[in-house]
Amino acid sequence: MNKDELKTMLEQVSKGELSVDEAVTRIKLQPYDDLDFAKIDTHRGIRQGADEVIYSEGKTAEQICKIVKHILENSSESVLITRLSEDKAETLGKEIKLFYDKASRIGIAGDKPANKNVGNIVVATGGTSDIPVAEEAALTAEFYGNKVTRLYDVGVSGVHRLIGNAEVLADARVVIAIAGMEGALASVIGGMTDCPVIAVPTSVGYGANFRGLSALLSMLNSCASGVSVVNIDNGFGAGYIANMINKQGI
Amino acid sequence: MNKDELKTMLEQVSKGELSVDEAVTRIKLQPYDDLDFAKIDTHRGIRQGADEVIYSEGKTAEQICKIVKHILENSSESVLITRLSEDKAETLGKEIKLFYDKASRIGIAGDKPANKNVGNIVVATGGTSDIPVAEEAALTAEFYGNKVTRLYDVGVSGVHRLIGNAEVLADARVVIAIAGMEGALASVIGGMTDCPVIAVPTSVGYGANFRGLSALLSMLNSCASGVSVVNIDNGFGAGYIANMINKQGI
Amino acid sequence: MNKDELKTMLEQVSKGELSVDEAVTRIKLQPYDDLDFAKIDTHRGIRQGADEVIYSEGKTAEQICKIVKHILENSSESVLITRLSEDKAETLGKEIKLFYDKASRIGIAGDKPANKNVGNIVVATGGTSDIPVAEEAALTAEFYGNKVTRLYDVGVSGVHRLIGNAEVLADARVVIAIAGMEGALASVIGGMTDCPVIAVPTSVGYGANFRGLSALLSMLNSCASGVSVVNIDNGFGAGYIANMINKQGI
Amino acid sequence: MNKDELKTMLEQVSKGELSVDEAVTRIKLQPYDDLDFAKIDTHRGIRQGADEVIYSEGKTAEQICKIVKHILENSSESVLITRLSEDKAETLGKEIKLFYDKASRIGIAGDKPANKNVGNIVVATGGTSDIPVAEEAALTAEFYGNKVTRLYDVGVSGVHRLIGNAEVLADARVVIAIAGMEGALASVIGGMTDCPVIAVPTSVGYGANFRGLSALLSMLNSCASGVSVVNIDNGFGAGYIANMINKQGI
Amino acid sequence: MNKDELKTMLEQVSKGELSVDEAVTRIKLQPYDDLDFAKIDTHRGIRQGADEVIYSEGKTAEQICKIVKHILENSSESVLITRLSEDKAETLGKEIKLFYDKASRIGIAGDKPANKNVGNIVVATGGTSDIPVAEEAALTAEFYGNKVTRLYDVGVSGVHRLIGNAEVLADARVVIAIAGMEGALASVIGGMTDCPVIAVPTSVGYGANFRGLSALLSMLNSCASGVSVVNIDNGFGAGYIANMINKQGI
Amino acid sequence: MNKDELKTMLEQVSKGELSVDEAVTRIKLQPYDDLDFAKIDTHRGIRQGADEVIYSEGKTAEQICKIVKHILENSSESVLITRLSEDKAETLGKEIKLFYDKASRIGIAGDKPANKNVGNIVVATGGTSDIPVAEEAALTAEFYGNKVTRLYDVGVSGVHRLIGNAEVLADARVVIAIAGMEGALASVIGGMTDCPVIAVPTSVGYGANFRGLSALLSMLNSCASGVSVVNIDNGFGAGYIANMINKQGI
Amino acid sequence: MNKDELKTMLEQVSKGELSVDEAVTRIKLQPYDDLDFAKIDTHRGIRQGADEVIYSEGKTAEQICKIVKHILENSSESVLITRLSEDKAETLGKEIKLFYDKASRIGIAGDKPANKNVGNIVVATGGTSDIPVAEEAALTAEFYGNKVTRLYDVGVSGVHRLIGNAEVLADARVVIAIAGMEGALASVIGGMTDCPVIAVPTSVGYGANFRGLSALLSMLNSCASGVSVVNIDNGFGAGYIANMINKQGI
Amino acid sequence: MNKDELKTMLEQVSKGELSVDEAVTRIKLQPYDDLDFAKIDTHRGIRQGADEVIYSEGKTAEQICKIVKHILENSSESVLITRLSEDKAETLGKEIKLFYDKASRIGIAGDKPANKNVGNIVVATGGTSDIPVAEEAALTAEFYGNKVTRLYDVGVSGVHRLIGNAEVLADARVVIAIAGMEGALASVIGGMTDCPVIAVPTSVGYGANFRGLSALLSMLNSCASGVSVVNIDNGFGAGYIANMINKQGI
Repeated sequence: MNKDELKTMLEQVSKGELSVDEAVTRIKLQPYDDLDFAKIDTHRGIRQGADEVIYSEGKTAEQICKIVKHILENSSESVLITRLSEDKAETLGKEIKLFYDKASRIGIAGDKPANKNVGNIVVATGGTSDIPVAEEAALTAEFYGNKVTRLYDVGVSGVHRLIGNAEVLADARVVIAIAGMEGALASVIGGMTDCPVIAVPTSVGYGANFRGLSALLSMLNSCASGVSVVNIDNGFGAGYIANMINKQGI
Repeated sequence: MNKDELKTMLEQVSKGELSVDEAVTRIKLQPYDDLDFAKIDTHRGIRQGADEVIYSEGKTAEQICKIVKHILENSSESVLITRLSEDKAETLGKEIKLFYDKASRIGIAGDKPANKNVGNIVVATGGTSDIPVAEEAALTAEFYGNKVTRLYDVGVSGVHRLIGNAEVLADARVVIAIAGMEGALASVIGGMTDCPVIAVPTSVGYGANFRGLSALLSMLNSCASGVSVVNIDNGFGAGYIANMINKQGI
Repeated sequence: MNKDELKTMLEQVSKGELSVDEAVTRIKLQPYDDLDFAKIDTHRGIRQGADEVIYSEGKTAEQICKIVKHILENSSESVLITRLSEDKAETLGKEIKLFYDKASRIGIAGDKPANKNVGNIVVATGGTSDIPVAEEAALTAEFYGNKVTRLYDVGVSGVHRLIGNAEVLADARVVIAIAGMEGALASVIGGMTDCPVIAVPTSVGYGANFRGLSALLSMLNSCASGVSVVNIDNGFGAGYIANMINKQGI
Repeated sequence: MNKDELKTMLEQVSKGELSVDEAVTRIKLQPYDDLDFAKIDTHRGIRQGADEVIYSEGKTAEQICKIVKHILENSSESVLITRLSEDKAETLGKEIKLFYDKASRIGIAGDKPANKNVGNIVVATGGTSDIPVAEEAALTAEFYGNKVTRLYDVGVSGVHRLIGNAEVLADARVVIAIAGMEGALASVIGGMTDCPVIAVPTSVGYGANFRGLSALLSMLNSCASGVSVVNIDNGFGAGYIANMINKQGI
Repeated sequence: MNKDELKTMLEQVSKGELSVDEAVTRIKLQPYDDLDFAKIDTHRGIRQGADEVIYSEGKTAEQICKIVKHILENSSESVLITRLSEDKAETLGKEIKLFYDKASRIGIAGDKPANKNVGNIVVATGGTSDIPVAEEAALTAEFYGNKVTRLYDVGVSGVHRLIGNAEVLADARVVIAIAGMEGALASVIGGMTDCPVIAVPTSVGYGANFRGLSALLSMLNSCASGVSVVNIDNGFGAGYIANMINKQGI
Repeated sequence: MNKDELKTMLEQVSKGELSVDEAVTRIKLQPYDDLDFAKIDTHRGIRQGADEVIYSEGKTAEQICKIVKHILENSSESVLITRLSEDKAETLGKEIKLFYDKASRIGIAGDKPANKNVGNIVVATGGTSDIPVAEEAALTAEFYGNKVTRLYDVGVSGVHRLIGNAEVLADARVVIAIAGMEGALASVIGGMTDCPVIAVPTSVGYGANFRGLSALLSMLNSCASGVSVVNIDNGFGAGYIANMINKQGI
Repeated sequence: MNKDELKTMLEQVSKGELSVDEAVTRIKLQPYDDLDFAKIDTHRGIRQGADEVIYSEGKTAEQICKIVKHILENSSESVLITRLSEDKAETLGKEIKLFYDKASRIGIAGDKPANKNVGNIVVATGGTSDIPVAEEAALTAEFYGNKVTRLYDVGVSGVHRLIGNAEVLADARVVIAIAGMEGALASVIGGMTDCPVIAVPTSVGYGANFRGLSALLSMLNSCASGVSVVNIDNGFGAGYIANMINKQGI
Repeated sequence: MNKDELKTMLEQVSKGELSVDEAVTRIKLQPYDDLDFAKIDTHRGIRQGADEVIYSEGKTAEQICKIVKHILENSSESVLITRLSEDKAETLGKEIKLFYDKASRIGIAGDKPANKNVGNIVVATGGTSDIPVAEEAALTAEFYGNKVTRLYDVGVSGVHRLIGNAEVLADARVVIAIAGMEGALASVIGGMTDCPVIAVPTSVGYGANFRGLSALLSMLNSCASGVSVVNIDNGFGAGYIANMINKQGI
């Protein structure tokens, strides 16, 4: 169902030719467009409150381009693209309007939405090396209109850096705690604040870090009570959930 | 700092004998009572918005009893106790007023608070065997005053049971999705709702389940975007976080 | 034993110079040709109902070429080659007639057999990134003469896409369910159909996916009853088994 | 929807008061009965071709009893119960008619169906210690009316035992290969037969067996092409899938 | 070589009948007593500066008793025994003089040495449940004459408890940091002190704790620089190493 | 084929009524007796040079008893039984003549063969707790007629104990090195001797030992060149292989 | 707080304008400089006794350069840089004075401090391939002024090499034992000396070494009592801790 | 001790100027030459019956070259070099006489010894892809003078290929069984022969093979009794042990 079809259907509703219930059903029954290699969920905005996002790994630049164009033409003015490699970004940029952040590998196709600075999400990292994941979270949250406060390199081995920023944490509605190595940041922050903490383990480290397993297990075993966890290096997921929580009641 | 000391201090503040800032500092500097074997965080309610909770495993009945009494006498009218074995509950029940739920191993010492039915948290399980973990989550959430809607045995191998309850999910402010085995429940629910989903993997299953590892990994890799995860069988953690999110903006 | 020897032997049988039993024994005793570095099972078609297949990894282009030529000259008109890298395919294509599909790394040497479109195998994927594995399965099944219906990008986070294709699943004699990340697709499909489901975990994903372990464990722990599992990314194996099952009773 | 309701509805269909399509829809829309702690899939027979099965672990004897009674009263004359411990079986046997096999922990409530001896499923084990899992598979397959041929203790360290039974394997429409330790049985059988092989790793063994991990990985990596795998010790699953395959085209 | 033999030999040395070098060689060549099932290292005090310690698991009460008696009679006035179960302690107590601490399972046979209170070792734990391991460490350190300061239940989810004890940490010559769950205590302490930190992961926790793996990996990946790690629950090892470090230069 | 049948057949051979080749074939074709739940390899002595051994775990006392009786009546004067629990041994001892060693859980049914003291196998352990596994190895080797030299509690943390026994090692034709914890014994022995070393990791230890994984990996990674490894706690396997090697050329 | 500010403040202290306590507090309250992407702990020397060290992985050459310059200008005359790749070293060398050791990837920016040869740290390796990690440890220890004695290629498979160097070990105040493969070096050295042993597992090896896991587990399970462990390949950590221990009481 | 020194010493012995015992002691006390970065065990031939072997990974071409030259000049006429990469071989070949086999990465420096064809070692592989590991084993065994019989591509999925070579196996004094994937080859061969079987798991395979873990666990859990195991891909180790066993009693 493209824009025109949607328009036609809504006109029928307004004329009383189609019941509201029936219209809802049709939308539910045709909730995706079939590009053969991908079934695009163009109505996710209606069902889930946020538009379709494209995860780029394992997709060719050509496939990404087709999906983006389809969405921009049919359902949305901008599309968030994650894990976009530099060379795919370059290819894409020749065909469509594209904002691209190299560190986080975030791309935004179409018109980058203005940030409405809703609420307050604090994005904290244990070290400088965690910044790419943090930016993926921060840019995702900003894409959806949230205010983001960055608090980088406040790892627990120098706990005074965290305590010195206690007020920044106190102002947050959600905190995203991002750390590799032993991943203890989430527990310490969890004990310092009364808002939900989304923990993101990163693969930063070596040896017995086992590509992020160490931080992942730490965060899952956090003795602080308000901490939940997403996949290793999943900055996007954390930004998306933080957006949901931040907007509760706003 | 017990109640009397707190009272005295606050009187000094009201008389202008003590500045507000100084009072806050004192509270921050003495935020626990030292029982030697335990340092009780009696001011967590002030700092974190929820009172101290007692995790029973690895503590003797005697230690639990001392901590509970201390809290009831000094800072709170009821105490939530998790993972309380039947025999410890029996010992405890002889000394203090205790509500005890055998399936979830939840105990509530002191006066069980009336549920204020705030907002709406849906607690869903994949199967009947996941109910003990679900009740730990549900009773925790109810302890903090949240409305809880139970939706049990709606696992993905009969996906029509979930779809038949789409409206129940639509009314939630937060969903707690609890499942063992392949843990797919969180992903399917995550795709059906626009509110945050807290996923709890359980150790239900056998063989290549590896005591919950299977469901844990599934949930961490969820392709649905609003899902974050807590430790295996951690019903309490999920209930606690759901409480935080449910009350955002209320 | 090459074709001529086989022919001679069978003539002796027809003339009564050799008993049937003795002939069978000879076939059983000489069931392979020895190329020194490989023992080619030229009679697998007789014993197993499907000709020898070449797994290319760890073999040099030269070794593959020798094996292919030997088979084409002695026992078969076409040979299926799996995991054939692009550069080996190029080398091979200079010496023998070769069909090559780059995405799935499937090669078919000799005369590509016409597809007889027997029965119906549905090949479903969770996402676009799983397509290379899916094509390995689909091309394998088609090589053996099966009808294949492709159903790509129907992952469980948008479960309406699956339900919208319920009839496609209902028409299947076997379903191959291919998914990475949390691998929940197999369970949901398993609950929607009454035919066997072959589950293929893929290595699509990152972090706690641990190169496909997540999807593998999910699928092994499926709460749906008709699901069996093959190795991570093993599209060929799934296609081969689906072929066996699809042809039962046909 | 119980039997009477179903009957009434079908009468309406026969009188033309209800369209066939509408009747089908109603069945699809009410496909389970809600016991609160369990949602019983009483129409699985219609949708999946086999009635609901009860997995006992994690359920109390009381819960199992309620589910069984509900099914026997509403939708089926017999119910298969797996992983039923001896003491639960004893409790259950006081309330309902129950066949119970101690080794496999299989229970059949209601009237045990006569075996129709359809087709031929060979159940093979590597050793004597694998027999409990094998009987779970065999009794499941027999419950659904399949002919089962038992071939126990034919492990690969004495490969002549397998070869001596080559004809037994040749007569199978499906083989279930059950083995612990190194789990090599599936590969060897897979190379000797042209029918699908369902491999069941068992937890038989010690040390580096890691509770069945060794056999599980072996079977997933089988170099024989017709082998798919179910969970460790999952005899039921194997019997169920073998039933599906065995009945293809019969 | 028992005490008398040693005495005789040393007399020969003093009389010039035996060179000093030769005496040293003899000691080096006969450094253990052979009880057949055990080779007792009676000269470890000479070579390593601390007497033989008995690890009880896997030894029968009878074997332990024989070893203890042999040591008390030949080389030492007291023997440290670790992981001594209650029933073995009871059996042992009937035959020899025994101090026994139930929580830590530490036994001291013979005359318990007076604590000389050398230096200062701080033993800190994350929670109350870690105390048994902490006492194993503390009693070991005290057995060797060290001053021990206990600092229990100062886990990182209430980091103010740690900061409130900063001076206790500042006075330490070595800190033993003991924690289960996410094991973050070691990193935070490591960043607050300039003395070596011995980290002991404990098996306290559940689920994704995997019997202490979580805390172990955390501690190995500590971003604080002065932290080294011993085995899970190895309180004895930590106490022993702390003893070595504490006495450096004293 | 029982003893009488074998005798008759051999008489036919001696009379020229049966060719030697034919006799060999018959033996190969009927190499086991079928007890339904077990296929007894009564000719393993002919094919493999050592009679059938019974692994008891997972077998009932009744099954073991039937197998033992069958072997004693048909093919052998004594049977080695491994992993025999005390209660099964008691049951068995009532029906048949049985030697039983409680520590190693080794049973010998029938007439215990006199040890011929062939060659020399040294069985060394790291500690006293490894003795049960060592005795399983030693009794197995003695059962097959080998001379065994026990060298217990010579672990590497007191390497002088090993060096003091260098001559014992020098006299060995094979060494079995048995150790838990870090399993370093095999490497050190491997560097001190020029005969093959069979390494047996044991599950002795705790924490990061992970039930023997630590010792297993150590031994597999041995930097000494003559070391091969068997399963964790597999004393029988080591004794059996040592027997094979010890008798080479004797 | 830069050098001048520090100087001014200390002058105020000396003049009595500022109390000592207040000065200490100020230092504690401003303990880092904020470069936005990094929070530099310029006062670690005061708090921890050793200056900030830069871990290079995951940082860009540009980021490292900014941090180094900031430190050299504000708080220190030289900076230790670890895991510095060759190309980053080249970039860095163009901007600042840099000592670089290619094997260990250690860089020292600014004026390389003269080694004061305090105490004695022995750095021992199992093999030649462990030297890069050993040099990281040795250069770190020398950077902080310690005497380092190198003892390379003394692995346990030729234990005479270790025993031949017993006196070198006897002279140590701390030993760093570095080994890959089975990692047994730490245990053997631990049994030969009475000083603390810091064990460093390396990723040297292949196959069941699993990138250092084998050596790591070995070392954690060491049966020698004075051994503690750092992360795989963490030469820096070992050198740093050895420095702390070596200087105790000096 | 180089050749000349050894010669001088032996002359002293022959003249009676030095006792035999003293000479032996000197050899034992100086059993290696110290190149600083490597301690060469030039007397391993005396102590272990086989000369020093060089493992190349982690060593620079320059280091290898120095070691080789030292050995060739002092103690041996040829040196076996394993895991020698092509580029290091090229560098080495310019300085010393070198035989190099690219597939197995085996190098032999100096005069390649003539093969004496002692005994008989069968080297069997499951597939063609295992040949590089097999050649490492075979060339090692031939280097030490053993007769080697190659039996490649006889994997268990076509078990007739193994049975067709039963006589080849029957003639072996030792079998080396090399296989990746499920690694079942060792068990099947173990059941067909009465000589020791050295099993070598290879990293051939993908997915749930986990770089050889699957075959490794299979082989460790072999239900055949004469099987011991070396590290993944460790062809050299297997060839070395087979050499030891093959020469027993010859």
